[in-house]
Amino acid sequence: MPLVSKFIAVKFSANTNWRVEDTLTNEAALQILVNHEPFSVTMRTPGSERDLVRGLLYAENAYENLQGPFRYQTMELGEDGIPSVVNVLLSDEEKAPGADSKRSLTSVSSCGICGKEDLSAIELCGDPIADDVQFTPVQIAAMFEAMSSVQDVFLKSGGSHAAAMFNAQSELMVLKEDIGRHNAVDKVIGYCLNNDLLSNAKCLLVSGRVSFEIISKAHRARVPVLAAISAPSSLAVQTSQECGLTLLGFCRGEHLTAYAHPERIQVR
Amino acid sequence: MPLVSKFIAVKFSANTNWRVEDTLTNEAALQILVNHEPFSVTMRTPGSERDLVRGLLYAENAYENLQGPFRYQTMELGEDGIPSVVNVLLSDEEKAPGADSKRSLTSVSSCGICGKEDLSAIELCGDPIADDVQFTPVQIAAMFEAMSSVQDVFLKSGGSHAAAMFNAQSELMVLKEDIGRHNAVDKVIGYCLNNDLLSNAKCLLVSGRVSFEIISKAHRARVPVLAAISAPSSLAVQTSQECGLTLLGFCRGEHLTAYAHPERIQVR
Repeated sequence: MPLVSKFIAVKFSANTNWRVEDTLTNEAALQILVNHEPFSVTMRTPGSERDLVRGLLYAENAYENLQGPFRYQTMELGEDGIPSVVNVLLSDEEKAPGADSKRSLTSVSSCGICGKEDLSAIELCGDPIADDVQFTPVQIAAMFEAMSSVQDVFLKSGGSHAAAMFNAQSELMVLKEDIGRHNAVDKVIGYCLNNDLLSNAKCLLVSGRVSFEIISKAHRARVPVLAAISAPSSLAVQTSQECGLTLLGFCRGEHLTAYAHPERIQVR
Repeated sequence: MPLVSKFIAVKFSANTNWRVEDTLTNEAALQILVNHEPFSVTMRTPGSERDLVRGLLYAENAYENLQGPFRYQTMELGEDGIPSVVNVLLSDEEKAPGADSKRSLTSVSSCGICGKEDLSAIELCGDPIADDVQFTPVQIAAMFEAMSSVQDVFLKSGGSHAAAMFNAQSELMVLKEDIGRHNAVDKVIGYCLNNDLLSNAKCLLVSGRVSFEIISKAHRARVPVLAAISAPSSLAVQTSQECGLTLLGFCRGEHLTAYAHPERIQVR
């Protein structure tokens, strides 16, 4: 599996749309075992697994040896021929405290899945989203303008992510900012729950990129449209297609690219 | 605690430097308990904790109730008066499967700490870095040019992060790309370990922002200089100051801002 994959998507401007081929970064789950026991799961771009796992175990203080051998084995390959389960053999002398600690279940990517112990955790529950709400590219552009006009933290620091929820009339319901993309989404959905507004939530806007976990959160909250300023991952697109979510990326003014379920985007 | 804090930093151009006041996004750890038992730790920007925790428990399938009360308590405040430990009371009827599962130790931010069970996990081990390597702003600019010239995945997809390691002569040792910022760093450090090169590693470049966990990984690998294209978090700056790491942000051409240990940046 290369680092990127090609996808067919639909580009929209205010008045028209057309099919395009787009190249996206691959994302896939990797389960890491230590002495055949679950250690962690990370969502990552395939490739350099041996480096990734050694760097991760080192960062986690699970294997300190700077020069010794690294007994690394690929245990299973996914459908696409990339490693899905790998194992590292550590003797009792080689093990550092992080190898046994519950606290070794650390996230190592910005995905929100990392830290889970096994791959079965990575499945969406619930039926595909069925919702006939529609938005125009002009409405999406106006929502991003509304979001950026109230992105106070970003304006001050240039270093935060935002998520914002809109209703079917494309009115801003809530905006939250956070150093972490996933926190911003959790804050927005939590606000809707705390204020009994989730059933009105129809379009979630996020700054930055979209990986699997953001799709998972949107699907769980039954939000039919997710729009991002930047690119989605391969797995974000595949998952959105399966779970009935309209996934929009590269939303810039009235231009956007629909990677899944473009039927909720309407042109005149 | 507001969402942002002010820091004194040193801006550099090729030939000079000057002190500035800069505003950065706050980052702090929050431990979440369910029925007074550790559930997860997340690094987040303070504020909206009740929304964050409800959204997170919902995403984790730990508490499904869409309309019921949410029994949320602040247990401890940090030194700065923001919540550091919060508790959610769930009756047996309210609990969903995610409340008890080991798999609930999920990351929810792009920080790399999230998923750990308690706050004591969030401490750096090891002495401050003492290394008298120096780089000029012109060398830093050349390193970023070298990085971007081989950032193949980003060029193709526009949706990946890169990390690259350089030696004391500012020569590129290795570059890795990944959908996750932390994976890219783990891959680079793992490559250095697998090839017995870590003692030569003097400057780590990362695309994007810098949060606490990136500092933690760099410090553990004893890399004295970390340079980023975008902003650091408040905690990244505080931690770098303590652990002897030179932290550079907003590296754009020959302009950069040093947030910690500027003595390793040399002007003519």
